[in-house]
Amino acid sequence: MSPAPRIVIVGGVAGGASAAARARRLSESAGIVLFERGPDVSFANCGLPYHIAGTIAERKRLLVQTPESLSARFDLDVRVDTEVVAIDVAAKVVIARHTRTGKETREPYDALVLSPGAAPARPPLPGIDDPRVLTLRNLGDMDAILAAIGRGGLGRALVAGAGYIGLELAEALRQRGLQVTLVERLDHVLAIADPEMSFPLQEELVRQGVDLRLGASVAAFEAGDGFSAVLAGGGRIPCDFAVVCVGVRPETGLARAAGLELGPTGGIRVDDQMRTSQPDIYAVGDAAEIREFVSGEPALIPLAGPANRQGRIAAEVILGRDSHYRATQGTAVCKVFDRTFAMTGLGEAALRRQGIPFRKIYVHPADHAGYYPGAEAMTLKLLFAPGDGRILGAQAVGGAGVDKRIDVLAVAQRAGLSVFDLEDLELCYAPPYGSAKDPVNMAGFVAANVLRGDVELWEPEELAGPGTGMLVDVRTFQEFAKGSIPGAVCAPVDELRDRLDELPRDRELLLFCQVGLRGYVAARLLTQHGFRVRNLSGGYRRYTMEAGARTQPLACETPGR
Amino acid sequence: MSPAPRIVIVGGVAGGASAAARARRLSESAGIVLFERGPDVSFANCGLPYHIAGTIAERKRLLVQTPESLSARFDLDVRVDTEVVAIDVAAKVVIARHTRTGKETREPYDALVLSPGAAPARPPLPGIDDPRVLTLRNLGDMDAILAAIGRGGLGRALVAGAGYIGLELAEALRQRGLQVTLVERLDHVLAIADPEMSFPLQEELVRQGVDLRLGASVAAFEAGDGFSAVLAGGGRIPCDFAVVCVGVRPETGLARAAGLELGPTGGIRVDDQMRTSQPDIYAVGDAAEIREFVSGEPALIPLAGPANRQGRIAAEVILGRDSHYRATQGTAVCKVFDRTFAMTGLGEAALRRQGIPFRKIYVHPADHAGYYPGAEAMTLKLLFAPGDGRILGAQAVGGAGVDKRIDVLAVAQRAGLSVFDLEDLELCYAPPYGSAKDPVNMAGFVAANVLRGDVELWEPEELAGPGTGMLVDVRTFQEFAKGSIPGAVCAPVDELRDRLDELPRDRELLLFCQVGLRGYVAARLLTQHGFRVRNLSGGYRRYTMEAGARTQPLACETPGR
Repeated sequence: MSPAPRIVIVGGVAGGASAAARARRLSESAGIVLFERGPDVSFANCGLPYHIAGTIAERKRLLVQTPESLSARFDLDVRVDTEVVAIDVAAKVVIARHTRTGKETREPYDALVLSPGAAPARPPLPGIDDPRVLTLRNLGDMDAILAAIGRGGLGRALVAGAGYIGLELAEALRQRGLQVTLVERLDHVLAIADPEMSFPLQEELVRQGVDLRLGASVAAFEAGDGFSAVLAGGGRIPCDFAVVCVGVRPETGLARAAGLELGPTGGIRVDDQMRTSQPDIYAVGDAAEIREFVSGEPALIPLAGPANRQGRIAAEVILGRDSHYRATQGTAVCKVFDRTFAMTGLGEAALRRQGIPFRKIYVHPADHAGYYPGAEAMTLKLLFAPGDGRILGAQAVGGAGVDKRIDVLAVAQRAGLSVFDLEDLELCYAPPYGSAKDPVNMAGFVAANVLRGDVELWEPEELAGPGTGMLVDVRTFQEFAKGSIPGAVCAPVDELRDRLDELPRDRELLLFCQVGLRGYVAARLLTQHGFRVRNLSGGYRRYTMEAGARTQPLACETPGR
Repeated sequence: MSPAPRIVIVGGVAGGASAAARARRLSESAGIVLFERGPDVSFANCGLPYHIAGTIAERKRLLVQTPESLSARFDLDVRVDTEVVAIDVAAKVVIARHTRTGKETREPYDALVLSPGAAPARPPLPGIDDPRVLTLRNLGDMDAILAAIGRGGLGRALVAGAGYIGLELAEALRQRGLQVTLVERLDHVLAIADPEMSFPLQEELVRQGVDLRLGASVAAFEAGDGFSAVLAGGGRIPCDFAVVCVGVRPETGLARAAGLELGPTGGIRVDDQMRTSQPDIYAVGDAAEIREFVSGEPALIPLAGPANRQGRIAAEVILGRDSHYRATQGTAVCKVFDRTFAMTGLGEAALRRQGIPFRKIYVHPADHAGYYPGAEAMTLKLLFAPGDGRILGAQAVGGAGVDKRIDVLAVAQRAGLSVFDLEDLELCYAPPYGSAKDPVNMAGFVAANVLRGDVELWEPEELAGPGTGMLVDVRTFQEFAKGSIPGAVCAPVDELRDRLDELPRDRELLLFCQVGLRGYVAARLLTQHGFRVRNLSGGYRRYTMEAGARTQPLACETPGR
């Protein structure tokens, strides 16, 4: 590459803007042209739902950079409202067209970075082109949703799809005072989460007045007597407008037309330096197919952090540095009203799909010392390799401190630590912030106990099969009386040593308590007294989460709205 | 060891209680005797200041376990109010004395775990034995402080020593409505922190009405005309009572008398399985000398998390497992009113003392996306090895999210990651929780830029020496006008390319901005245009923190109270 290369970047948001800024910091002499189809560059796309909610009051706060500020700081040639419509690979030229004037220009490049992003999917349903069917990707989309809210007064909105954006949008519209119906094709919200872990989000949505329709999908939009969405199994949901949030598809049209290879996921194939199949063309962000961290498989994981990182790496490689992008863990967090869900690595469903063997444990710690006011409960699920205890994934749901624990586990996973290492982690402790045994330590203890064979676990799905195990609730009689697993007998842990004669030695005992800890203590005790026992990791609380996740669609058939 | 060993544990709080519970989970047949000199076991010693403050309203919340609950759950022989006064090493027997009746018993052991903890230091000052001179270690001490508050009405308290406990106590007493004078021998609070990083805590203390006396120490307590503390340099501070928090000393009397080896720190020498110099005697917690993680040197690091972990490991080793304690990083966090300070690894002073070469950088990120409401600023200081970028230590001070970033860095440090790895960490991001480039990523970028030679840094202490560098403030004129480093000229970063002729090429340019980022951009720009430049990591904000830390004692000579 020449000492003053001409770098052309297509797409001016996360990955593209990062590539441009990094390129300039590395080279004052490079010519850097940044094309953006829309009117805005480097805007806060993750903030859009929060301006709709009114949480971010001023629209201009979302304009983190402007074409002018980027140009001034980084001497960029920023061309907004300009779509790159073709790449002449042989000539190393892009053809760009102004979206309003239609004027076309040819821009030669020494290196080209594609950061086109991903567009909201719009399934080809009858009525999908009705102007009341919206999506959310950029500021213009946001403005359209705000206009729709304004038109309907405190009206009714339908959100189709309960992924991250659908959930944030459902919350935003509720906060604006609208009646909100949230329709999700699966039997649980947040497809990437395991069902029992997203169940508390469903409870929260219902508590906050969202009309949640699980296992339902929109078959059509109808504009007859008022606007409405028609569900696949019948049923009609009248609404003033609908927002379709059923996923995104990578914007690969330009790449495809230029003959760049796509990968099995449909994303633009890149190597670990973000290089496409064409020399001097790079792709970053939501349209680039990267490796998933745990499986090493090709994946599309549309997240802002990785997009920025990839943009940075592409610029470094273009300017002669030996930078590499390793893989994406998919670390993510989502606020759903007063609940937080976060995860890293793979979930249970993905591990099964990939055929990766795993073990799992649940803990339900508080975010900080229970005796200090304001402690909030969370559920933390850890997925790990049966052999060496390598961390495969983690999910957490609850209140404060959920993001912190997933961050800690994301670092541990990336560093290749095992559940045994989690036992040793030395984390911040003072009563307002944590516990001397942090939730992550606790998860490590429980998982390591399993791998060391200190305790055997049973899984709730076993109850559906033919079993001879005896269910033993080791909580107190008071707790037992408030509700337990059907068929269980109560034998409080603190009385076990005095009542060993009352438990059968010819049947396996399936122990459980509230969160798993007393069950573990009981399991250790009884094992050493010669009983055959297993414990339920996560205890009755986890049992109720799984049971709730299974029955939620039924519960939602009476929305009462 | 026999299959039913007799395990005696001395000390029933963190390390001792953990050892007892773990031992029972591993062995139903072990005999486990737990001696505790005081009346309480396994109480929440970290919660004491918060009950004094009134934040934890009920005293009983601090009694996490009782002798009865521990006995019921773990079949322990718990003996409170009983001090172990001697160990007959040859006979493998301890002699215990009831603190009220004086009755002595002999208790044989197969394995002995010493978890005596550390006692608050009481320097031999005139008047130190006055009943109004208190310390804080256990519930009895807490009760005495509460009684002293009650006696004086809304009176005046003196806290001597501004370590973690002194700071928490100063806050607690202020929250009770007392006038509080906090006396610290050093020129900054929190000796373990670097001065500029504890400066914001000093500002917070003053803002909250604490009369902070730095560089001052109590020479005597006098009970003449009312009670007062006499300062070393003269001056007298009248008060109703004083709490001495000038550090702790390991309780090694019993170990010493039994002939156990002590280490160079004065703590009980143990190997990495918590074994003392005597077979079958183990020591854990604040009295045990462990290895400091970064230097590998012997150290006393009194923290609850490590104590619990060590107790657990001692029990495992006693019961035949091959467990090891690696080292203590000293990860810790402290709330000071509305500020949080946290750290892991070594600080700058400790690194210098140990002769460990280091580089350092500062960033001042917000805890979450700036455009989402409620973002709070923090300062994050990262210390790392000049060669491979290994993380040596990290300190952070600010509002929300400080504990999270130090936890992330503590894991990274323990896993042996370098600053280059920090660039790649994939952490939770949604606007309410973080940024697409997390503060830890930012620290990684900045540190890696330094190690890669992308930017050279200058340090404020150079300004005191004879320098020929020209100070260049690359912030805006508006910012410059509000205050800058004396002698600096203003050359805003966004105008630099047009004003290259105005800057000298025969002098080194010492650049700075507000937080370090624009200075870095300017440094990259100017370097490539042939200028000799260095940047100030952390910018003007860091400069003011260091300047504040230097001048704070003077500022405090006019407490106005």
